This record gives sequence, structure tokens and C-alpha cells, in this order.
Amino acid sequence: MAIATRYHWEKLESFCSSVFEKAGVSKENSRIVANSLIEADLRGVDSHGVVRTAIYLERIEKGMIDPDAKPVISNESDAALLVDGHNNFGSVVGTNALTIALEKARENGVALVGVKHSNHFGTGAYYAKKAIDQDIILLVLSNASQTMPPTGGVRPFIGTNPLAVGIPAGENPPFILDMATSVVARGKIIVEAQKGNSIPLGWAIDKEGNPTTDANAALEGSVLPLGGPKGYGISMFIDILAGVLTGAGFGKYVNNMYSNWEEPQNVGHIFLAIDVNAFMPIELFKQRMDQYITEIKAEPKATGVEEIFIPGEIESRRAEERKENGIELPLKVVEELNSIGMRYGVDLAAATYELNSLGEVQK
Amino acid sequence: MAIATRYHWEKLESFCSSVFEKAGVSKENSRIVANSLIEADLRGVDSHGVVRTAIYLERIEKGMIDPDAKPVISNESDAALLVDGHNNFGSVVGTNALTIALEKARENGVALVGVKHSNHFGTGAYYAKKAIDQDIILLVLSNASQTMPPTGGVRPFIGTNPLAVGIPAGENPPFILDMATSVVARGKIIVEAQKGNSIPLGWAIDKEGNPTTDANAALEGSVLPLGGPKGYGISMFIDILAGVLTGAGFGKYVNNMYSNWEEPQNVGHIFLAIDVNAFMPIELFKQRMDQYITEIKAEPKATGVEEIFIPGEIESRRAEERKENGIELPLKVVEELNSIGMRYGVDLAAATYELNSLGEVQK
Ligand SMILES: NC(=O)c1ccc[n+]([C@@H]2O[C@H](COP(=O)([O-])OP(=O)(O)OC[C@H]3O[C@@H](n4cnc5c(N)ncnc54)[C@H](O)[C@@H]3O)[C@@H](O)[C@H]2O)c1
Ligand SMILES: NC(=O)c1ccc[n+]([C@@H]2O[C@H](COP(=O)([O-])OP(=O)(O)OC[C@H]3O[C@@H](n4cnc5c(N)ncnc54)[C@H](O)[C@@H]3O)[C@@H](O)[C@H]2O)c1
Repeated sequence: MAIATRYHWEKLESFCSSVFEKAGVSKENSRIVANSLIEADLRGVDSHGVVRTAIYLERIEKGMIDPDAKPVISNESDAALLVDGHNNFGSVVGTNALTIALEKARENGVALVGVKHSNHFGTGAYYAKKAIDQDIILLVLSNASQTMPPTGGVRPFIGTNPLAVGIPAGENPPFILDMATSVVARGKIIVEAQKGNSIPLGWAIDKEGNPTTDANAALEGSVLPLGGPKGYGISMFIDILAGVLTGAGFGKYVNNMYSNWEEPQNVGHIFLAIDVNAFMPIELFKQRMDQYITEIKAEPKATGVEEIFIPGEIESRRAEERKENGIELPLKVVEELNSIGMRYGVDLAAATYELNSLGEVQK
Repeated sequence: MAIATRYHWEKLESFCSSVFEKAGVSKENSRIVANSLIEADLRGVDSHGVVRTAIYLERIEKGMIDPDAKPVISNESDAALLVDGHNNFGSVVGTNALTIALEKARENGVALVGVKHSNHFGTGAYYAKKAIDQDIILLVLSNASQTMPPTGGVRPFIGTNPLAVGIPAGENPPFILDMATSVVARGKIIVEAQKGNSIPLGWAIDKEGNPTTDANAALEGSVLPLGGPKGYGISMFIDILAGVLTGAGFGKYVNNMYSNWEEPQNVGHIFLAIDVNAFMPIELFKQRMDQYITEIKAEPKATGVEEIFIPGEIESRRAEERKENGIELPLKVVEELNSIGMRYGVDLAAATYELNSLGEVQK
């Protein structure tokens, strides 16, 4: 029988979680890492979903991630805190830091938690959503290994350092902005290269620093920051806060997860949490958010546009759809997960999404 | 004798300050407003310099700005504060809020000051520079009246809401990112229209929402957010924090400074101040910043690029140059300032930059 490519989100999460447990990660941390991957797949950010299971495992196996480490608050003032991740998983360290940020924001109105000695933390939306669930506004920043040149440069110096913002609303969907600071994700260029397509001018430069429409030349060169010097500036600002200020790596000192097997990544993050109640009652704020979102969505639309979305709305709808209809994975990812499952003695097939008797997705 | 177009920055600042005093503004506040305008001219952000004197005066005269109002802290937790600007000048209210943010950041490690009932506050760099002088990291956000559509929209809904960040360094110049969230400032499109030039695709849409290269059609339409949905998301995030959260206007409730004479603008701002010492000793931080900046500036350069700059560096150099060689103003601006001077009995000619005996700029 052919291997299934559609998976039930909760069962797939259990699969990943079990694999991490078998690899020596505690039950609690396994759940966090698996949950952060599945959340990305649900929202359609497939590049940050279960496709990362293999590399995460490899980094534990080679001692590049320490799944037993306890993140520690290493410097504490009332509202500004520093967490040393001691090289545990990015999502474990991030979840710890978030918990502290939410608690301290409730006490002080605002809290800024910097994090050093962490790893790739997945998507920013993962943390933004959790803050929203607690009626807290969150800004999350992380640096990443080198992929983009400075304006005027030729080769990668800064990462596509992501910025995410979560803001609760009332009846309307919450605001979840979650973005890389590049024009487009490098993954989109890989896809075009595989299809033999060219890419629009402005996405990337070749390795001599010239603008290119050749997807392969772009992959040997660098992705460009969004909006020229503006995106370069935003990405650098993120690197400074998440890296220079926290004591984490910055620029070339953020090690590449895929190619550096000598040293931990030393990624840095920033979690800025704001308690709405320090400014106005949360119920009034939610009313104002609803009004704002309703007014934007009612704006006249350009030709061919069906709906005006707020950031995060497309992803939230996709998550609902995938919860209902399962998550379709590329065959390559399925095969990889399957062999991981065999190695660790966890059955991937148990996570298969059950089609109805006609072999159709159930509606 | 022809009217001079080159002015001495300090004398021009005195001229503006005197004019505001004659218009009924206190000496202290006149100095703040004049200083914020001259700082913009020095840095080359001419769109936010003395060219704004006329509209600022008109708004006082018509009762749209209350230059006697005292900004008041209207809601206070330890690190999160709300300032009600009571409709004084944006730069006066902003300077007040900044002072509070810097003080509270020193006490708490971080401070977030929201501001409502304010006005156009000039450039974000004005505040970022002051924070840097005090070794504090600052993030400044402001909303603005409608100029950009949401992604998929046809007409302006959000402002080109500026974002600025100031970060101190040691020997190297500080990091000062100060940007509108549009692809380019609307002012650049006005300049191209005046020259009869077309504009690059992607800068703007016409009033039907179609992409346009016609500068005049663009001016009747809307400027686009930088990077498509990403800039739209960043601009909306700024509107939510500066407007929805503070109780200021947001979206269409931020009134246009030039066209609305019924009501104050009700602009909102956010000042987030971070005391570096909460994370690491400031001297160590400055060493790390210097290393970072030195490494970026030493990166290999693309063909034709003479130097890699960090954000704010071009503007800082321009300020030094203009302090030395005077500020050259367009004739139209000079004539306007001259007639303002005559109306208020302040002599613009006294601010003229002295050329040497050969009529050249003195080096
Ligand atoms: N951990 C890391 O090192 C790292 C690095 C880079 C990126 N990432 C993650 O990669 C993911 C993808 O980033 P991306 O920049 O490719 O995302 P993207 O370009 O798909 O989306 C960016 C944002 O724009 C919004 N958006 C898109 N189209 C819209 C529309 N029509 N109307 C309104 N809003 C719209 C989305 O909701 C999202 O908030 C993010 O989750 C990010 O956190 C992580
Ligand atoms: N108060 C308001 O309502 C309002 C609204 C919008 C804009 N503004 C102000 O308008 C001003 C202009 O904004 P803008 O977006 O047109 O600025 P801009 O595009 O000229 O510059 C944006 C940023 O990019 C940096 N930069 C530019 N070229 C660079 C290079 N080659 N290398 C490195 N960095 C480089 C600059 O130093 C600056 O920090 C800002 O001062 C902003 O605060 C104010």
C-alpha cells in the first residue's frame, strides 16, 4: 500500500512528540517542540513545520542542542530580564522566556525579556498566539544565521531575522503579523529553481552582488532585505536587540543550524509583552480593535481582490481548514518522517488522516 | 539684493523659535519646536524641516494646537505610562513623553510610554538621538493621517506611520533607523511629478487601485506600503499601538494636518526605552556595537558602491556638513519664511549664512 501523505494534526503531533522522547527529550519539552512544529504546519508555514524534525534530531544527537538544560534567569530587574537558554531547543527556551514575559508584564504593565544561548525557535506566531490567549500584546524578535547582505554588500551578513506581533481582538480574528525581514523567504526561491522558473528582479542578488532573475544564481548569492535599506535597517535592529544586547551571537556569530557542527547556534531572542490593562480596560481595547478591523475589512477592494485580510487571518483560516481536513505533506517529508519513525520505533502510519470510504477528504 | 537661500543652522533655529514666541508659544516650547525642525533640515530630511513652520503656525492660529497645554501622565504603572498631550505640539508632547520614558527606563530597565491627543511630531530620529545621548536604546512609533491602502485596497486607510530606533555605539556612529512604512516618501513622488518624470512601478497606485508609473495619477491615488503585506502589517501594528492602545485616533480618526480644520489631529505615539545596563554594562555593549558596525562596514561591496553605511550614518554626516556649510533652502520655502518673519516682526535675513568674500561657501 502506498504511504499516506495526509495526516491528522493531533496524531502527527503525538508522533513527533514520541520521537523526541525516544531521542531523550523530556515529555514536557518534547510536547513543546512538537507543538511548535505542528502549529507551523497548521498555519501553512510548512517551511517551519515537521520538515524540521530531522535537523532538530540530528542536532541533539550530535550534541549541538542540550535537551536537558534548564533555561535560567541570569539577570533581573523588575521589567527587564535576561534568560540564558543554556542551549536547549529554541522553542523550549522561547516558551520559558514567554512565560516569564507574560507574568512580568502583568506585574509591571510591560516586560522585556532578552534571551541568549538559544537555538532556532520556529515561527514567531507560535509565541504571539499564546500571548493573545492571555490578552497580552507581544512583540517577538529573533536573529538567525547569515542570509542577507547589508545594502551595498555582496554576501550574506545578517539573517532574515523574523519579527512577529500578536494583538488580541474581540469578535474579530486577532492581529498576528509574523514575517521574515527578507523580500521573500529563501524557500520560495528554492521552489522556483526546482521548477526551472526565473524570479522577479529585486528578490535576490547573485554571488557577485548583481541583481538577478536566475533562481539558481540567487541561491548561490543572497536573498535581499525587504524594501532595500529599510529592511536592512529593521533586520540589523533585530540583530542588535536579540544578539548584541543579550550577549547572544550576532552577524556571523549566529551559527548555521545546517552547516555548523562545531558549536551551538547561540541564537538570541527578544520578547516584549504589554499588558493592555496598563493603558485601558481590555474590554474597551477589544471593542476598539474590532472596530478597527471591521473598518479595514470593509474598505473598497481593487479589481480582482475578493477580500481584504488583516495579518494572520489567512493563516488562522488555513489552520482551521487543516484541523478539519488534515495536513497534506510532501512525499519527501513523509519518507523522511517514516524513516525517523522506524529508527525510533514510533509508527507514522498511526497518524494518517482517515479518508472517508470514497477515499475523499471528509468535510 | 536677491534674497539669500543659504542659512546658518543656529540662527535659523533662533528665527523659528522667535516666530513661535511671537505667535504666543512659551520660550521653552518654541525652542523645542524650532530645534526639532532644524534637526530635520540638518539631517537632510527637508520634508520635516522649517518647511513645516507655516502649517504649524496656522494650526495654532486656528486653535487646532494648544501651545499652552501641559501634557499630563494620565495612567501610571511602574514601567507602562500613558501621557495625554492635551493637544500641544507633537514635538513638545513627544519631548515630554521621552523624558518620562528615559527616567522610567533607568528605574525599571525598560519603560513604555504611550501618548494620546498629540500632533505631528516631526521625525523619529529627533527623539532617538536624544535617547542615544543618554545611553538609552529607544524605539519610537507614531501614527499619521491616511495615505496608504491596506493590501488589496484602493484608497488610503493607514498612514505612512514612522518607526525609528536609536542605539548608542562607542567609537563608531550610533545606529539611527528612521523610516516611513511606505516604499518611498510621498514627497519623492511630488518631486517626480513636478519634473514631469514617471515613477517606478510599485511605489503607488492610482485612485482606482491600479499600479501606476504616472506620478500625477499616483498623487491622486495612494502611496504603497513597503514590501507589500509586510509593510501594511508593520504600519497597522504601529497604528494599533500608537492609536488603538493609547486612546488616540487610528485609521481615519487621525485627522489630516493640512485639510481638517474642525478638530485636533489626535495623533498617538509610543516611546519604548531600554536601559542597556539591565542587560550588560554599557561599556561592554558599546564595544560589541563597535565590533558589529566595524564588521558590517568592512563587508565586500557591490560594483559601484563606495561604502557600506549603517542606518543614520548618511544623515549624521549630512548634519555635520550642513552645520559647517549652512542649510540651503528652496526659494519657495525662503519666501514663505520671509513673509512669516515680516508678519511676526522677526528678521529672516539675520539668519543668512555668511559666504566668504568670493561669494563661496566657507570650507
Ligand atoms: N526562526 C527563524 O530563524 C525564522 C527566520 C525567518 C522566518 N521565520 C518564520 O518564517 C515564517 C514565514 O515568514 P514570511 O516572511 O515568508 O511570511 P509571509 O510573507 O508568508 O507573511 C508575512 C506576513 O504577512 C501577512 N500577509 C500575507 N499576505 C497578506 C495579505 N494579503 N493581507 C494581509 N496580510 C498578509 C501574513 O499574515 C504574515 O503575518 C514566519 O513564521 C517567520 O517567523 C523564522
Ligand atoms: N511624523 C510623521 O507623521 C511622519 C510620517 C512619515 C515619515 N516621517 C519621517 O519622515 C522621514 C523620512 O522617512 P523615509 O522613509 O523617507 O526615510 P529614508 O528612506 O530616507 O531613510 C530610511 C532609513 O534608511 C536609512 N538608509 C537609507 N539609505 C541607506 C543606505 N544606503 N545604507 C544604510 N541605511 C540607509 C536611513 O538612514 C534611514 O534610517 C523620517 O524622519 C520619518 O520619521 C514622519
